[in-house]
Amino acid sequence: MTTYFTPGPSQLYPTVAGHLQQALADGIGSISHRSKAAEASVQATTEALRALLGLPAEHSIFFLPSATECWERILQNCVQRESFHLVNGSFSEKFHKTALLLGKTSSAHGVPYGEGFDLGKLQVPDSAELIALIANETSTGVQMPPEDIAAIRRQHPDKLIAVDVVTAAPHAEIDYADTDLAYVSVQKGFGMPAGLAVLVVSPRALEKARKLETAGQYTGAHHSFAQLHKNALLHQTPCTPNVLFIHLLGKVAQDMLQKGIGTIRRETREKAALLEAAVSRNSSLELFVQETRVRSETIVVATVTGGSEPLIQHLKEKGFWVGNGYQQFKGKQIRIANFPATQNGDVMGLCEALANWQ
Amino acid sequence: MTTYFTPGPSQLYPTVAGHLQQALADGIGSISHRSKAAEASVQATTEALRALLGLPAEHSIFFLPSATECWERILQNCVQRESFHLVNGSFSEKFHKTALLLGKTSSAHGVPYGEGFDLGKLQVPDSAELIALIANETSTGVQMPPEDIAAIRRQHPDKLIAVDVVTAAPHAEIDYADTDLAYVSVQKGFGMPAGLAVLVVSPRALEKARKLETAGQYTGAHHSFAQLHKNALLHQTPCTPNVLFIHLLGKVAQDMLQKGIGTIRRETREKAALLEAAVSRNSSLELFVQETRVRSETIVVATVTGGSEPLIQHLKEKGFWVGNGYQQFKGKQIRIANFPATQNGDVMGLCEALANWQ
Repeated sequence: MTTYFTPGPSQLYPTVAGHLQQALADGIGSISHRSKAAEASVQATTEALRALLGLPAEHSIFFLPSATECWERILQNCVQRESFHLVNGSFSEKFHKTALLLGKTSSAHGVPYGEGFDLGKLQVPDSAELIALIANETSTGVQMPPEDIAAIRRQHPDKLIAVDVVTAAPHAEIDYADTDLAYVSVQKGFGMPAGLAVLVVSPRALEKARKLETAGQYTGAHHSFAQLHKNALLHQTPCTPNVLFIHLLGKVAQDMLQKGIGTIRRETREKAALLEAAVSRNSSLELFVQETRVRSETIVVATVTGGSEPLIQHLKEKGFWVGNGYQQFKGKQIRIANFPATQNGDVMGLCEALANWQ
Repeated sequence: MTTYFTPGPSQLYPTVAGHLQQALADGIGSISHRSKAAEASVQATTEALRALLGLPAEHSIFFLPSATECWERILQNCVQRESFHLVNGSFSEKFHKTALLLGKTSSAHGVPYGEGFDLGKLQVPDSAELIALIANETSTGVQMPPEDIAAIRRQHPDKLIAVDVVTAAPHAEIDYADTDLAYVSVQKGFGMPAGLAVLVVSPRALEKARKLETAGQYTGAHHSFAQLHKNALLHQTPCTPNVLFIHLLGKVAQDMLQKGIGTIRRETREKAALLEAAVSRNSSLELFVQETRVRSETIVVATVTGGSEPLIQHLKEKGFWVGNGYQQFKGKQIRIANFPATQNGDVMGLCEALANWQ
């Protein structure tokens, strides 16, 4: 029996296998993406996500194949010339680099990996049209507190705010009214197999996309915001999407609603506390993120004295798969995903295995 | 009990549900896309597709989310200025329109929907870099015989040949050495849930993409051919893909190999003959494609006297879902998918229901 504490793909939410089996029995793998049944599925999923995350009624919900594609489409649709990025890890940096690849002017405010941002030190260029934030840096386990997102929104009312919530949602208590663009892939906190992402878009961001498209900017063919929005109004998507996973995401979101988002968030905090305590008790391990305020509750990162490979192997033998350090931290750190899919008992088992490792 | 003869999403291949259940039990929904297990899965699927379709060893295989994205990426990577399209239905036309949306010069040789092409009448502009063909027009049920693809390749050795095999593969006996770009989505002939496409790329096409990228053309960020190829060499993908469906596609392709592609193709021809005969026997129905040589064996299209809606409803009540006519043919035609997933008995049942309809 294996429990996946990997940062995503990760442990499947306990109800996923059952929903998948039922969906196949109901023909969801075969129905046309233009059928009433598929439209009902898109609508149900949209409504469940809206309720679960408290999304503003006026924000649109688009289904895309990956968070990586979200980077490309956000830049094509919402940036004419310039974007600005807060960078403290590999994923926030990749978004910045995608902007450069797209020929945009793009600058970044970087801090050392493992650290959060001091908002007082931010110098956002007047010419930047979009500020890219990351609610939870999956590579380093640093979170941006929701109040910081709100503060940046207040300080820059004229700029679009894009927030990577890939490993933050549904846990982080973000007020999505503070975001113009927020995106998540389902193989993280939603405990689904990989292959689907959700992009939440404010009316302002949609308006900007329309303006840029009218001005002749390439906004992404089938996945331009205008096209995505046109289809979303019909509970459809521009091209044949992953119908099955959209359906499944709705089911998982409904299960989470039933359990209660408050309960899920409390459990996540409790599990995070257990994991942090276990790391702190083992003198071979050290929490990577020093500052409590910005330490992620969904991705717990620890540096391992003498290297992380033996510990990863040890845990694997006990049935717990954790993530390796990312890029330059590979072989030096472990990353433990603390998503809603893992149960308290799983986490206690992992904590014991961490404690018993010399 | 419903059998889906819809043109895709369509009936699931009989082994899909079992493979999906086993894959979940094996943790395929949770494993990292950078793990050895995921690499092994990508490799196994690639090899099975290569064997099943007889793909040249030097052609690369990329996994993308949809055939629609394949249009965009082909144009970004393989066309600097100009593409040329053979258009005889909605899907071939959409590829042409995508080229215009991308700011390319793009011309089309069009024939009436329901007809094939007379190669003697083709006038391909010297300046066109790419010729787009469609092996099977899903909207109208017209196929392009593989020998015509080969002839166009011979006549235009200096141009890249892109072939839409979305509803043609694995049935059509195409020599993929005649193609520089061939793409298929898995919810058609492979009988899988939607959410994955395969793009087969020749060394010449890859070379062109590299040249355009070096010259400063935008080739698609994470899904540039150079990036896709770099990852494919490692049996990986640039971003987190639909790991589960890539795995599943490999299993289905292996099952098809086991059965024998020759057997599958023979059965498809036999089932097509049954369907055509049933349509011909009913005086209210008429095969849309008159010319036998270009009549699709995988999408059988019939015009229904007095409108197709009552017939579609009648068949649905008998447990057979067929497709409606596409766009301007909606309400006038039915489209019957004849993919490997449906069995001889299913087709005979559908034929009987067609025959008994007044």
